[in-house]
Amino acid sequence: MVGVTYMLKDRIKKEELLNRVMSPQEAAVFIKDGMTVATSGFTPAGYPKAVPKALAERIKAKEEPFKINLYTGASVGDELDGELARAKAIGKRLPYQTQKDCRRGINQGNIHYVDMHLSHVSDFVRYGFLGNIDVAIVEAVAITEEGFIIPSTSLGNTPVFVETADIIIVEINTHHPLELWGIHDVYQPEKPPFRKPIPILKATDRIGDAFIRVDSKKIKAIVMTDIPDSIASFSEIDKASEKMAEHLIDFFHLEVNKKRLPQNLFPLQSGVGSVANAVLAGLVKSNFYDLVIYSEVIQDAVLDLIDNGTVKFASGSSLTLSPKGIERFYNNINYYKEKILLRPQEISNSPEVIRRLGVISMNTAIEIDIYGHVNSTNIMGTNMMNGIGGSGDFTRNAFISIFTTPSIAKEGDISSIVPFVSHCDHSEHDVQVVVTEQGIADLRGLSPKEKAKTIINNCAHPDYRHELLEYYNKGPNGHIKHQLNEALSWHMRYLQKKTMKR
Amino acid sequence: MVGVTYMLKDRIKKEELLNRVMSPQEAAVFIKDGMTVATSGFTPAGYPKAVPKALAERIKAKEEPFKINLYTGASVGDELDGELARAKAIGKRLPYQTQKDCRRGINQGNIHYVDMHLSHVSDFVRYGFLGNIDVAIVEAVAITEEGFIIPSTSLGNTPVFVETADIIIVEINTHHPLELWGIHDVYQPEKPPFRKPIPILKATDRIGDAFIRVDSKKIKAIVMTDIPDSIASFSEIDKASEKMAEHLIDFFHLEVNKKRLPQNLFPLQSGVGSVANAVLAGLVKSNFYDLVIYSEVIQDAVLDLIDNGTVKFASGSSLTLSPKGIERFYNNINYYKEKILLRPQEISNSPEVIRRLGVISMNTAIEIDIYGHVNSTNIMGTNMMNGIGGSGDFTRNAFISIFTTPSIAKEGDISSIVPFVSHCDHSEHDVQVVVTEQGIADLRGLSPKEKAKTIINNCAHPDYRHELLEYYNKGPNGHIKHQLNEALSWHMRYLQKKTMKR
Ligand SMILES: CC(C)(COP(=O)(O)OP(=O)(O)OC[C@H]1O[C@@H](n2cnc3c(N)ncnc32)[C@H](O)[C@@H]1OP(=O)(O)O)[C@@H](O)C(=O)NCCC(=O)NCCS
Ligand SMILES: CC(C)(COP(=O)(O)OP(=O)(O)OC[C@H]1O[C@@H](n2cnc3c(N)ncnc32)[C@H](O)[C@@H]1OP(=O)(O)O)[C@@H](O)C(=O)NCCC(=O)NCCS
Repeated sequence: MVGVTYMLKDRIKKEELLNRVMSPQEAAVFIKDGMTVATSGFTPAGYPKAVPKALAERIKAKEEPFKINLYTGASVGDELDGELARAKAIGKRLPYQTQKDCRRGINQGNIHYVDMHLSHVSDFVRYGFLGNIDVAIVEAVAITEEGFIIPSTSLGNTPVFVETADIIIVEINTHHPLELWGIHDVYQPEKPPFRKPIPILKATDRIGDAFIRVDSKKIKAIVMTDIPDSIASFSEIDKASEKMAEHLIDFFHLEVNKKRLPQNLFPLQSGVGSVANAVLAGLVKSNFYDLVIYSEVIQDAVLDLIDNGTVKFASGSSLTLSPKGIERFYNNINYYKEKILLRPQEISNSPEVIRRLGVISMNTAIEIDIYGHVNSTNIMGTNMMNGIGGSGDFTRNAFISIFTTPSIAKEGDISSIVPFVSHCDHSEHDVQVVVTEQGIADLRGLSPKEKAKTIINNCAHPDYRHELLEYYNKGPNGHIKHQLNEALSWHMRYLQKKTMKR
Repeated sequence: MVGVTYMLKDRIKKEELLNRVMSPQEAAVFIKDGMTVATSGFTPAGYPKAVPKALAERIKAKEEPFKINLYTGASVGDELDGELARAKAIGKRLPYQTQKDCRRGINQGNIHYVDMHLSHVSDFVRYGFLGNIDVAIVEAVAITEEGFIIPSTSLGNTPVFVETADIIIVEINTHHPLELWGIHDVYQPEKPPFRKPIPILKATDRIGDAFIRVDSKKIKAIVMTDIPDSIASFSEIDKASEKMAEHLIDFFHLEVNKKRLPQNLFPLQSGVGSVANAVLAGLVKSNFYDLVIYSEVIQDAVLDLIDNGTVKFASGSSLTLSPKGIERFYNNINYYKEKILLRPQEISNSPEVIRRLGVISMNTAIEIDIYGHVNSTNIMGTNMMNGIGGSGDFTRNAFISIFTTPSIAKEGDISSIVPFVSHCDHSEHDVQVVVTEQGIADLRGLSPKEKAKTIINNCAHPDYRHELLEYYNKGPNGHIKHQLNEALSWHMRYLQKKTMKR
């Protein structure tokens, strides 16, 4: 049912644009060494595929040094980050990535990576802080009669990219059915001093257009493609994740009983990765219903939640669905389209909207220290995993901000609860609830010393609990008890002996 | 001209309340061991003075253990934090303090201090996350015919405290003239899911009432006082602060030239402390005009800025004026009242409004690391200075977030630019510009490695520059170059040898 045959005129409704259709190779010619290229795509859905790949091939064939700055919505697939990283063609990369060759390039020092709050990017571009955008490459399902763009499976920063770029290349991906039209809600805030309130009062509110307005004279190339997003299916849900989901659901019930949350909670945000997916899957089995999601990525578990009535509406910035998930979605697209909405990431991640709606945020940490500081990004303080993504946007403004992490990693050689985080993305001021498979630590209203005892006793793995308490107890007095000479010793031990165990 | 004689009926316009006037000692009887007491007061203006002092005296006389939880807007004066800390009567304290005995109590482990984003407090109280509030004590200039409260020199969290507290004690401070009436703009957001946009489109917008609505049946005691706020005058502006102000003003000119800021900039926020005051004083001598302030504290320098036309309007949460400043203000109150507005701290510090208006934030750091993480709170990672205050609310949502710090402290024995912050309040993702007397580092769009070189070369003190570069160069490759075993060695050296110098 997906894609396959189509009439060019159904996909490009503005006649003058028909003659801009060309091959990926021809379109890639617009991209020159030193340019800043900004693309559609968000964790990794709706990113351009054919042109970047053609560009990478050209670069590899020529063997001349060639670097671009690559700006996206969030992470993108192998055809973009992977191909260009392997061609050593990425000079600077922002704001988020998850692709292994790109990550390697960053950690080997070949790629300058600017790890940014996802809600900041559109404004930074709009305000001119990130330089001129030479080319925007955006994936679309169609171009309207007015020359406007109907995006594909994500919105990300696409509106501001096409507005500010000198020229635009559109990849029309016929893998996506025309029926996607209508799932997007495109709204761009004015610049200060003319900016007005973002008029979202409920997660379901539509406030903008179903297309991206663009000056079609800037569209210099249109490339027809038929390539699915490369989104991996999740592995089996493990015991630890199941346990975390249980703790979380217990916590929600408790908050409802205390009348601090309504029966159907407040809108939920859920982060990326296997743990976040498992937590959502856990909700499927709960007896909550009529929940609402106000998040970034809409993962497979959300379809299950919608199908069984747990969730009645989901707002996000991307349809991050596995091949099976997207098939399921397309097979029932009119049903799901009533219950799912895609927004630009400056709106899905807007502090204003998140605080107004009272969103409950759930994100996964790499490590958390005994005082509640969270490392979301850098392994052992130096090696980038993915990036902060939207976790800061949600955490800081959430009704309750929750972080999940298995208490141990690498088969127990790493404790995810450490004396001192080796990199801090979310400070003690931002983290209200910590959940591991061991239990839950509710940090609201606690002082650092109270937090330390609660986190160690409730969340740390028993193998490390004693040593964490020892670290805490031996610390000199002060508001926060730290032995600075021991603070990072757990990480050093791991680097030297491949285990944090003494 | 200030206070002195008054008619009781001018200050308490609701007749039934006249018989609740009593002595501070009588009012203090309402406060019992174990209670949560929430007061007016913001950095340190408009806090209650007589009742806390009477309470402290009672406690000291009795010598029985007595502890309350003390919640305020932000820092308060000696009559409240000082008296109660010396009486060992503070069990838990939130969200901000600057008083030396209170600080000592925190660092000696006698007071549990919860260091919070100032914008979070009202919501946390409203949502029931910080427990029941037994008593609110608020300073006022008068009570209206309806029994509503006209606050004094600050607004802070007073609206939500009086709304949620079981009972209210009002201190009517006749030191403040009745003409203060009209300077406040009281607006309280609804709880989700009924919360609406905060309708501020310009810093000058009035959106609420000039009084705090309260159920006057809850007012159990009224105490008449005549005591000024205890706000210290600033010391002479030093060379380093002058230099920082110059760098900042150069930076603003550059941004205006690049058309990234309008001629009269965007609304300015300026933090607390002597450095922040010096930066504002520097603006007095600039040729900027018609500026607008959207900040928390309105310090003496703001009056100078208004008087010479540099600033046309200032919105804040408190009038933090020295004795001379407040006299000047009261002598010309009708003039200043047209140009100054006080808001609840959840509004002055609202992420929604800050981002909408494009506020430029300027806050002072204790230390900053080479990758741009900022420590605002804990000396050597363990000893609380003041707290994060509103710096996070502004920094995260600012048009441009700027941090200032002298490059050295303690006569050069401390470098404020360090390899790794000993406490992280603002992460690399939040910090866009760093200013020391040495120069300015514009970090927008830079990767960590680029940031490190820029900060070291432009901002570090020459005495430490070489060693910082050495630390950076010797670090193993990775996204961020850190030698974990050396990361905190500068702080350890200082703790052992009282100098960071080798
Ligand atoms: C933290 C994050 C990496 C976890 O991802 P996940 O898929 O749920 O978690 P996993 O347990 O599979 O961990 C991923 C990897 O990190 C490793 N890891 C986890 N904790 C670790 C720790 N404390 N130290 C070192 N490595 C750790 C795991 O071993 C695993 O490594 P592998 O890929 O070599 O197997 C991911 O959620 C993330 O990038 N978060 C930051 C961004 C964010 O929060 N976004 C939300 C909105 S965009
Ligand atoms: C950071 C802050 C303490 C600076 O205050 P200030 O009055 O401008 O700065 P000073 O240079 O006088 O420094 C204050 C003290 O910190 C000490 N200090 C400064 N940098 C230091 C460092 N890196 N290490 C150790 N001590 C340091 C100074 O020596 C001085 O000590 P003293 O009181 O014993 O003389 C203050 O701005 C603050 O508390 N900020 C955090 C809250 C905030 O940003 N609020 C803004 C909105 S509410």
